[in-house]
Amino acid sequence: MNKQLLLENIRGVLMRLEETIIFALMERAQFCVNAPVYEPGRFGAATGGESLLGYLLRETEQIHARMRRYTSPDEHPFFPAVLPEPILPALRFDESPLSGPAINHNQLLRKLYETEIIPCLCRPGDDAQYGSCAVTDVACLQVLSRRIHYGMFVAESKFRETPESFRETIRAGDTAELLRLITHPEIEERVLKRVELKARTYGRDFDGRAGQDRIQADAVVEIYRRWVMPLTKEIEVEYLLRHPR
Amino acid sequence: MNKQLLLENIRGVLMRLEETIIFALMERAQFCVNAPVYEPGRFGAATGGESLLGYLLRETEQIHARMRRYTSPDEHPFFPAVLPEPILPALRFDESPLSGPAINHNQLLRKLYETEIIPCLCRPGDDAQYGSCAVTDVACLQVLSRRIHYGMFVAESKFRETPESFRETIRAGDTAELLRLITHPEIEERVLKRVELKARTYGRDFDGRAGQDRIQADAVVEIYRRWVMPLTKEIEVEYLLRHPR
Repeated sequence: MNKQLLLENIRGVLMRLEETIIFALMERAQFCVNAPVYEPGRFGAATGGESLLGYLLRETEQIHARMRRYTSPDEHPFFPAVLPEPILPALRFDESPLSGPAINHNQLLRKLYETEIIPCLCRPGDDAQYGSCAVTDVACLQVLSRRIHYGMFVAESKFRETPESFRETIRAGDTAELLRLITHPEIEERVLKRVELKARTYGRDFDGRAGQDRIQADAVVEIYRRWVMPLTKEIEVEYLLRHPR
Repeated sequence: MNKQLLLENIRGVLMRLEETIIFALMERAQFCVNAPVYEPGRFGAATGGESLLGYLLRETEQIHARMRRYTSPDEHPFFPAVLPEPILPALRFDESPLSGPAINHNQLLRKLYETEIIPCLCRPGDDAQYGSCAVTDVACLQVLSRRIHYGMFVAESKFRETPESFRETIRAGDTAELLRLITHPEIEERVLKRVELKARTYGRDFDGRAGQDRIQADAVVEIYRRWVMPLTKEIEVEYLLRHPR
């Protein structure tokens, strides 16, 4: 089997991503909610009708596309319609390990991020640090996108391990049963425990600073439980439903 | 005194930056040295004669300038000559707390980063992940630049605390004596101990992964000792030498 699809390797990538996700969230949590960052058109014509975050995200993707970011099978743009060609020569990837459909749930991720994850993570209010704040938002969205779309690799891998257990359910289009098949509560609990441990460790106060704006490890765990893991599984299910079997 | 100049506040900022610096370095350390990333012109005309890193850094600064990043007194661009105007309305900063000269040591920082810090931090060799690698380089350089240029705030603050102790030395242009005046070995040792503790904590293996590419806490401490702290002090001294007294 393609080594990108070994469940063990996939879990290794997801574990390493936890650290990047937690730290990105901690950086964002230094700022308030800052609602104006997410208001479309708030900063006039220069952002092309987008919010400040949308503008920064689109411009960042333009540059990263030139660095061939979106030629990698595990990267998914938020603005796929307007990407320039890479200036780097193409990397030779192995034949795509995914035999199912390409799925891009970034619109949904962005909406949930702006309306639910940010209020869960950040102090309410406005500190006027819109630029710095949006820079940390881009880092959060990029790594969260990478994490949830890994669901395609997870699903392909699970399918190939025991195709027989999936075929009938896929044929019947039974979403609820597919969700049950791919869900392993004991693994999910282990992930949440580990995320909590990491978040508590990184959020530890080394400096004896009182009133420091530290992320609550609880918020990070909550974000994993309520959005990161469900979105990943949603992508797994959708991927399997449209899998060629 | 302007609250940006209270040594206590400055130390708080520098402590929080430690975490961002350590994590940025850890992210970079996932990749090999990747020499082609730093070779001017290596990727042809599209990079305008720059290295891949130079190209990504310049393009990133273009976007961040539009988000008014470089209107903040603690941000310093690597490509100051080509920055566009901000699209965000100007923030009203308090009157600049710095009465000395503006110093920009980013050229030197970039050179030391590429030729000394990267080989100290990363495994030798080439993993072809140039784009991802350069993205982490930009994060490292931006936060290292912010850290070392904080030396201006540190110097201004030390000067205002005891101006008499500096005036004569500044008048005499005595660089060595200025360096001695601003150096507090016991504080430096405390910073290094804390950086080591943080680096060991963040680099901890939570997952029982063998062969994981973890940064050595030692490399981070070394980077602080050999480059971060000396560059900060170099900026302090240069700032004081040209201080209006």
